[in-house]
Amino acid sequence: MSGRSVRAAAFLFLITTGARGDEGMWLFNKPPVRQVKERYGFEMKPEWLDHLQRSAVHFGGGSGSFVSGDGLVLTNHHVAAGTLEKLGSAEHDYLKDGFSAATLSDELRCPDMELKVLMDIQDVTRQVTDAVAAKNPAEAVAARREVIARIEREALAATGMRSDVITLYRGGAYHLYQYKRYTDVRLVFAPEKQAGAFGGDPDNFEFPRWDLDMAFFRVYENGQPAKTPDYLKWSTTGAKEGELIFVAGHPGRTDRADTHAELIQARDHSLPQRLDAMLRNETLLSNWSARSEENRRRASGLITGIQNGRKSIQARLEGLLDPVFMAKKASEEQALRASFAASQEWKKAAEAFDEIAAIEAAQQPSARRERMLEGAEGFNSSLFSIARTLLRAGQETPKPDGQRLREFRSAARSSLELSLFSTRPIYKDLEIEKLANSLTLLCGTLGADDPLVVSVMAGKPPRDRATELIQGTRLENPAFRRQLYDGGTTAVTASKDPMIALATLIESESRTLRDQEDTAGESITRATETIALARFALGGDAVYPDATSSLRLAFGTVKGYETAAGKVPWSTTLGGLAETSAAHRNQPPYQMPANWEGKTFDRDIPFNFISTADITGGNSGSPVVNQAGELVGLIFDGNAPSLTCGYAYSDKTARAVSVHSAGMLEALRQIYHANRIVKEITR
Amino acid sequence: MSGRSVRAAAFLFLITTGARGDEGMWLFNKPPVRQVKERYGFEMKPEWLDHLQRSAVHFGGGSGSFVSGDGLVLTNHHVAAGTLEKLGSAEHDYLKDGFSAATLSDELRCPDMELKVLMDIQDVTRQVTDAVAAKNPAEAVAARREVIARIEREALAATGMRSDVITLYRGGAYHLYQYKRYTDVRLVFAPEKQAGAFGGDPDNFEFPRWDLDMAFFRVYENGQPAKTPDYLKWSTTGAKEGELIFVAGHPGRTDRADTHAELIQARDHSLPQRLDAMLRNETLLSNWSARSEENRRRASGLITGIQNGRKSIQARLEGLLDPVFMAKKASEEQALRASFAASQEWKKAAEAFDEIAAIEAAQQPSARRERMLEGAEGFNSSLFSIARTLLRAGQETPKPDGQRLREFRSAARSSLELSLFSTRPIYKDLEIEKLANSLTLLCGTLGADDPLVVSVMAGKPPRDRATELIQGTRLENPAFRRQLYDGGTTAVTASKDPMIALATLIESESRTLRDQEDTAGESITRATETIALARFALGGDAVYPDATSSLRLAFGTVKGYETAAGKVPWSTTLGGLAETSAAHRNQPPYQMPANWEGKTFDRDIPFNFISTADITGGNSGSPVVNQAGELVGLIFDGNAPSLTCGYAYSDKTARAVSVHSAGMLEALRQIYHANRIVKEITR
Repeated sequence: MSGRSVRAAAFLFLITTGARGDEGMWLFNKPPVRQVKERYGFEMKPEWLDHLQRSAVHFGGGSGSFVSGDGLVLTNHHVAAGTLEKLGSAEHDYLKDGFSAATLSDELRCPDMELKVLMDIQDVTRQVTDAVAAKNPAEAVAARREVIARIEREALAATGMRSDVITLYRGGAYHLYQYKRYTDVRLVFAPEKQAGAFGGDPDNFEFPRWDLDMAFFRVYENGQPAKTPDYLKWSTTGAKEGELIFVAGHPGRTDRADTHAELIQARDHSLPQRLDAMLRNETLLSNWSARSEENRRRASGLITGIQNGRKSIQARLEGLLDPVFMAKKASEEQALRASFAASQEWKKAAEAFDEIAAIEAAQQPSARRERMLEGAEGFNSSLFSIARTLLRAGQETPKPDGQRLREFRSAARSSLELSLFSTRPIYKDLEIEKLANSLTLLCGTLGADDPLVVSVMAGKPPRDRATELIQGTRLENPAFRRQLYDGGTTAVTASKDPMIALATLIESESRTLRDQEDTAGESITRATETIALARFALGGDAVYPDATSSLRLAFGTVKGYETAAGKVPWSTTLGGLAETSAAHRNQPPYQMPANWEGKTFDRDIPFNFISTADITGGNSGSPVVNQAGELVGLIFDGNAPSLTCGYAYSDKTARAVSVHSAGMLEALRQIYHANRIVKEITR
Repeated sequence: MSGRSVRAAAFLFLITTGARGDEGMWLFNKPPVRQVKERYGFEMKPEWLDHLQRSAVHFGGGSGSFVSGDGLVLTNHHVAAGTLEKLGSAEHDYLKDGFSAATLSDELRCPDMELKVLMDIQDVTRQVTDAVAAKNPAEAVAARREVIARIEREALAATGMRSDVITLYRGGAYHLYQYKRYTDVRLVFAPEKQAGAFGGDPDNFEFPRWDLDMAFFRVYENGQPAKTPDYLKWSTTGAKEGELIFVAGHPGRTDRADTHAELIQARDHSLPQRLDAMLRNETLLSNWSARSEENRRRASGLITGIQNGRKSIQARLEGLLDPVFMAKKASEEQALRASFAASQEWKKAAEAFDEIAAIEAAQQPSARRERMLEGAEGFNSSLFSIARTLLRAGQETPKPDGQRLREFRSAARSSLELSLFSTRPIYKDLEIEKLANSLTLLCGTLGADDPLVVSVMAGKPPRDRATELIQGTRLENPAFRRQLYDGGTTAVTASKDPMIALATLIESESRTLRDQEDTAGESITRATETIALARFALGGDAVYPDATSSLRLAFGTVKGYETAAGKVPWSTTLGGLAETSAAHRNQPPYQMPANWEGKTFDRDIPFNFISTADITGGNSGSPVVNQAGELVGLIFDGNAPSLTCGYAYSDKTARAVSVHSAGMLEALRQIYHANRIVKEITR
């Protein structure tokens, strides 16, 4: 064989086998039955898969699972954090102190929570691609939006279920996901933050760990606990070393199919800039937070979220800054292109890589401006975001469904309204802080003499302008929001609300930038679609798509790993928390949690453990189940090496980190005396 | 008068009167005798001024004063912080726990401290300007360097004193400052950090405050306490509300004479970028610091320094982002230019503003690259800085003195060596952290595919590369540094030390960027010199120059101010610390200092107070004296509104913040039982 053929053949092998080892965030309608059977001798049966799929719960940005037939949902403390904060007040700091409902009637209704369960999947690829075929990019944006909105609208009308068309394989497939929605969700139990997030930011993404990162909610229907026949039986013994386990959850985003040009763009532009934005917000908000106990309470969840994102972005960036990794990606791409070029039918897929590079390069100059305006990085305030939503709702609602901006389509309308009319508290002091900081960033990024910036600032420095806008707006009032939403553009315009005026001021340029971005995105989708189809054609489609916040199945083994510094064991134990606290002289963030002081429990029971399952951000709260489909753990993190798995899976030292089901049970029993829940999950 | 003449006349008035109110950081050889006499009826006598000048002590980056005839020096805890850290170890955390020498022999010698006292000032403007006249910018850089080095060298030879030519009025004047140096400096007393910096970062730059931000050192000569006949008598009653006070100290930098174009450059480019760098370092180092008690100890001073700088940069930026302020600056500049243009002789000074704008614009594209390489923002490690110093010492030492880079001139050599051979601890783990973060920034700023960046990274991701460099270098060993320094270029090259290799790798481009910057700087100096001379010619020279870390005299009144939220009183009291701690539930950074628990003292004695004196960063540790020349306070901070005074003084709400002499005395007596020192300062 010539050198070229060898490379092409090597790559054909690679794309045929697809994932290797325990790699993969698999679709439930295309599960890795063969792979698991070959590696582990275990056969996933359709009913086993269906049961797991319907036991999995989608939280916005996180995951969970049913653990009783009466709608009890298990997730992470850190997934619950935003809600704990919304339920809190100066008198009750549920995030800091925890919460436990002694009886059903003590369960606390959450202001704007929506949980979803995936009930059905249909492949609608053909409908979407047919509608878009033979159109230019600008027409295609409209056509794609139109056909997707129609599929969703018709599905909603037919079944009453929330219906989302999910883009997979970067355009290689479109699936219609239909969900059962629950909007009456109540808080049942959460430990104090010091137990839920023991070790805080320094220990985030580390292992060994000692975190009781768990919380329970319950879904209700008609004022009663919902009946949820598909739920996971709680394993009282939990995960064992060496055991095969499965994870069902909602990984947010991976970029494993990104082209080399896209990775370079991320490495040199978007990731450094996003990291800067996070570092900025973290420091400025931490400083504000430290000024008083009440500030700390108000900003706590926000800061935790930023810290989490910062570590994740930082790790992604570090991954791309490894020249060896980038060289490997480049040579794999070269091989793939060569194999495409060698095929008469898929020549154009080889060219698609250059098209993507050209589009990325063309978009680069306006990318920061787009993020500042349309991405609202320059207007970091919940009140600005509400203002923009109201402004656009007024503009979009009268349009035919298929022509609206995606977030205003009928199929998603009830979720939009749930969020828009939420009674969650909005703290004006915190909003001023966030907006002042982001207006400063806006000035520094676009230049204070930029004509639009000059208009935005209205002759004032950032803090004064932020104060004037936040103090002047009435949008913190849900009834006022409802009034403007119902009144449409006329009411919105007549309101003279200063935040609406600000959103209106930037709307024209912001929309233009979004349109450009959408058109460029459409061109990229067409190119990536071509690549995906070529891969399927040449290598088969036994591959999993990049993560897109949709439900996925991962599998792996419970096991430790070796580093230069020594062996990292598969699990920690409940007793390790007190030892770690003592080693840090009980200093923050390693203080003993208040509820743990003086309690007697079995210190040798496993607490946190690791496995090779392929997960990423968004999997937080995912159930870990054994072959019997029992809940043996609760995903809450990945270790540091796992963070670069956004670009390529590895099982060398990368691990998913979970709370152990036996450890959770012991803590609920002996530390929190949450007997009602213990009874429910063990009956 | 025509409109133009009115404007010009108005400005002539402005430049004639110069400073207004309590404004001004005055030269000791051009003191505000008339201004103080007119405002306060107090006449500063030459002997009063001489005594104050020779009682003032220059710390690198800070200030202090003699408070006994036996070399006892008072400064701030935060000025001492770096030294407290250098003296510390895993066993003794002097920064955290404080230190008090019971006897003279317990005083701790500091590794690389140099204190200076200004003994003499001579005007050498003519010598410098004559040497530079009629040369093109590149020649002028060399000529200016040459003549300054010669003046300093000759002065050193004649007097044995450290001799520095100081640039004032941005080139309008050059003064030769001659200092007595003390290099045997010992630590006498410092409170625990929780008392010295009570309220931490959140309270930094705020008032009211409750900080015992003080420390004592002692200068020695020939192994004995030095005799310091010029010292400040400690006032046991201290500053009173409404009293006229004076401050002698070393303000670091103000930019009040900057042109509008320079302010825009700072606002839109350099300040946002510097702020980003600080926010980045603060977050990443804070995270590292929180991982263990020992990390915290190692990084504590560094983080405090960054936090301090971050607030200062942020405030400067906020000042420039005030469109009203910028418009005022622009119109003042217009008036000044008009008055120059109206004069036949000073027409060219009117043109100088445009020259500066053109040079700034031309430098802008390479500015970030210059800061990354020559400014070493991409190589944030003490070990890199040592490597570069050794590399350049080898290159520069053989050259004639006047042709060397300024930091290698003979007159400054002993200070350079003091720092280079310091035995201060260098922690390799912290250095890896700093270098990894800055290499990541380097990649993100210049792009990872930049050829020089590719060479720097040597095929590795930032953390691996940083680890390899820091673990591989031997430069943490002062004896090894001495050996390379003495051996010159041959020894440096032969060392094969990886950090030296890194410094060598970037040296060529870094030097080129520095040369370009120096030449551009020379052109700007010529333009600003022209402007300064025109101002003197048209308005007289009864004005003070911008701060340049040289000794200055400020004056003002002890007084509170009004805000929208109410009246801010002139002082706090010792009892307020415990009240504030209780209000914050004794949470960090408001915990009660360990030494304060259970102590009895007069809670009503003033603790911290404010005044209208014109100060800025670098004034920390400056003595505050009354008309009798007695020490009544110790500058340690400015409040938030004072931070924008870098561009224009204001006495509306801007205030200098000091520790009160009576409060310090009571604390020394009743809380720290530092009887030996109390006796010395009150005898």
